[in-house]
Amino acid sequence: MNIIEIIEKKKNRGILTYEEIEYAVMGYVNKEIEDYQMSSLLMAIVLNGMTNQETFDLTDVMLNSGEKIDLSDIEGIIVDKHSTGGVGDKTTLILAPLVASMGIKIAKMSGRGLGHTGGTIDKLESIEGFKVNLTDKEFIEQVNKVGCSVISQTKNIVPADKKLYALRDVTGTVDSIPLIASSIMSKKLASGADIIVIDVKVGNGALMKTIDSATKLANLMIKIGKKYDKEVVCVLSNMEEPLGKNIGNGLEVIESIETLKGKGPKDLTTLVLTLSSILVSLSFNITEEEARLKLIENIKNGKALEKFNEFVKAQGGNIEKIALCDNVVSVKSAKDGFIKSIDTYKLGEIARSIGAGRLNKDDEIDYGVGLVINKKVGDYLFENEELLKIYCKDTDISINEITECFEIVDEKVEKNKLIIDIIK
Amino acid sequence: MNIIEIIEKKKNRGILTYEEIEYAVMGYVNKEIEDYQMSSLLMAIVLNGMTNQETFDLTDVMLNSGEKIDLSDIEGIIVDKHSTGGVGDKTTLILAPLVASMGIKIAKMSGRGLGHTGGTIDKLESIEGFKVNLTDKEFIEQVNKVGCSVISQTKNIVPADKKLYALRDVTGTVDSIPLIASSIMSKKLASGADIIVIDVKVGNGALMKTIDSATKLANLMIKIGKKYDKEVVCVLSNMEEPLGKNIGNGLEVIESIETLKGKGPKDLTTLVLTLSSILVSLSFNITEEEARLKLIENIKNGKALEKFNEFVKAQGGNIEKIALCDNVVSVKSAKDGFIKSIDTYKLGEIARSIGAGRLNKDDEIDYGVGLVINKKVGDYLFENEELLKIYCKDTDISINEITECFEIVDEKVEKNKLIIDIIK
Repeated sequence: MNIIEIIEKKKNRGILTYEEIEYAVMGYVNKEIEDYQMSSLLMAIVLNGMTNQETFDLTDVMLNSGEKIDLSDIEGIIVDKHSTGGVGDKTTLILAPLVASMGIKIAKMSGRGLGHTGGTIDKLESIEGFKVNLTDKEFIEQVNKVGCSVISQTKNIVPADKKLYALRDVTGTVDSIPLIASSIMSKKLASGADIIVIDVKVGNGALMKTIDSATKLANLMIKIGKKYDKEVVCVLSNMEEPLGKNIGNGLEVIESIETLKGKGPKDLTTLVLTLSSILVSLSFNITEEEARLKLIENIKNGKALEKFNEFVKAQGGNIEKIALCDNVVSVKSAKDGFIKSIDTYKLGEIARSIGAGRLNKDDEIDYGVGLVINKKVGDYLFENEELLKIYCKDTDISINEITECFEIVDEKVEKNKLIIDIIK
Repeated sequence: MNIIEIIEKKKNRGILTYEEIEYAVMGYVNKEIEDYQMSSLLMAIVLNGMTNQETFDLTDVMLNSGEKIDLSDIEGIIVDKHSTGGVGDKTTLILAPLVASMGIKIAKMSGRGLGHTGGTIDKLESIEGFKVNLTDKEFIEQVNKVGCSVISQTKNIVPADKKLYALRDVTGTVDSIPLIASSIMSKKLASGADIIVIDVKVGNGALMKTIDSATKLANLMIKIGKKYDKEVVCVLSNMEEPLGKNIGNGLEVIESIETLKGKGPKDLTTLVLTLSSILVSLSFNITEEEARLKLIENIKNGKALEKFNEFVKAQGGNIEKIALCDNVVSVKSAKDGFIKSIDTYKLGEIARSIGAGRLNKDDEIDYGVGLVINKKVGDYLFENEELLKIYCKDTDISINEITECFEIVDEKVEKNKLIIDIIK
């Protein structure tokens, strides 16, 4: 077996065996296979695809490339939630304490911002003192005591995915359903939960641009889950506009707290309740409607917010001190009309460029900067009405570039449907 | 413009502009673009193809990546010949002096062995004292005086192709018609001849496995030639079996001399005459039949052989001293029958493995080793009749591996047609 034969096989639309996939991936992890050979193979996979069996095998090889989290010392039902990444997506910050307030355990590893999308870990770090690195023991103790913990992914979990993802990011080989499915699922399987809900974002601000591709990805992830006796449910949700109003780390924490108080934006609240209801329903074997009512109750009675405060405190965070810029620029509409579309990807890139995310791996984030979007698709705007606020340190920002993300028309526009599909 | 956008464009079946191709290729030559990004782009090109315009542009960018040979000091008509590479292909060694004996100039740069195929430069070096590196001045003086010279490709000619080819070789991205066409044509155009005949090998021992793909490659190279006012003619010739009998450097020189004496194998003689007739016909504006008769005359009257001796002597070679192993193993047929097929690629690999070629770039060649194939496709063999001879230093050779390259059957088998097509 050699890597050139494996590349040639996939190039000629052949089906790789487990051994061939293992040879390629582990050879790459062990530095026996060069970057330029792996990127050639990845492009062949992107263009010629993989069968379900190849995707199962790739997931398994990646899963076994490193350590797996042992959650056996956690009592009770353990659930997990994942998002394929969007703009303004702070769902985990709300969902984790909300679900934990029901007595369900969430032991979650999260990532940092990537490309135009933010990362839960960066958001949590905008809370002064919040520790994202806990030892295994501290992590498990917290989950047992508080009900939830969110930590940064350790180095030993699925190292193959880490190395492959970094290469895919710079070789134009990100958008492949088998590669995305195996990347997500190997990490989820290594993280140890039994019930997993995955929020598959669809739209111009997401990796999946169409419902068709999102559905394929969802079905493939569910099939992979079944192989390992994991219950996986996918929610296809709209990413043609940011989720909620706030984009930027500290701003998103503030919006999360508002939502836990029952005063959050409708779309964000709906998505959190939909994802949480699925987890609660599967955990307690009740209907999703019953689960939803119980969750709403825990928001109303303050238990969810209390759990959030407990969670932040347990990880050393001071909830009174959330990073936020003093300098705020108000951007007004140049004309009357309905918002027809929002270039969500571009907005994410702008947020990143003003400091909410990283352009290079080692860039420092400015936790206080971001955007607050007052109007969404279908909303009506008067001339000179505030469209959005920019929280930023300097004022060297192209306002035009931001307003160009919003297409405003005269005709009435339908609002986006948030929940596109639920696939089980 | 950035390389990821260019990769994504080709991945999505977009058509690259001249500027994008130049950015990618020159960025790669200048080490601003990484190997792993170029290999990803190359795989996207292999799988999604290139338009004719993209191929013209790629050729032009490569051609302009380095120096071009200035042949303006050579008097008379200058021709060139190229082969896409086969096993036992010693055509240049015969064609160059034969055509030069007609008063036509050949100023040729050749390569070393690559993969399973031998290289003209290695073959010439099996002649004691033969110098493959001449200064530009020496090269041109020799062509003016002798009529022909064959030297090793200098470092400054088409550096982009050199770098891309080395990468393609180890990333499974060799077999792409636009990439092959631009690689060959950029080098031919940089070498300065006006009339070029290209021997496109077709079959299991060649890069082009089918007549269809060889025809496409030929037509594309002719089109590229037209862009630069070069007369390009392609001969599609059979490579389902080795050309001639001898494989291995010294052995091929010996067979070339025999052919120049009029005593060479029929297939080799026919191919040399076909290619040479085209060059002579175009140079003198006579028919190919007339050209062929003149060429046969120069073999018969000894002028071609005389020119060969003159050429070798001019480059310092001693024609009396050609490397040849003393140790000869005779391999006999295990049964009666007709040869149905020969795994030519495998035979080339075996010749390489016993020392006739290199496995790694810096391996030393053993100029005296090789194979002499007595029987070809369609020939009848008696049990225990000699099938081939192995010239080798040690006897640690798997005879079985060699005999397995020959499929022997009871039914009569047609001989291969050598000249498949001539495309102008």
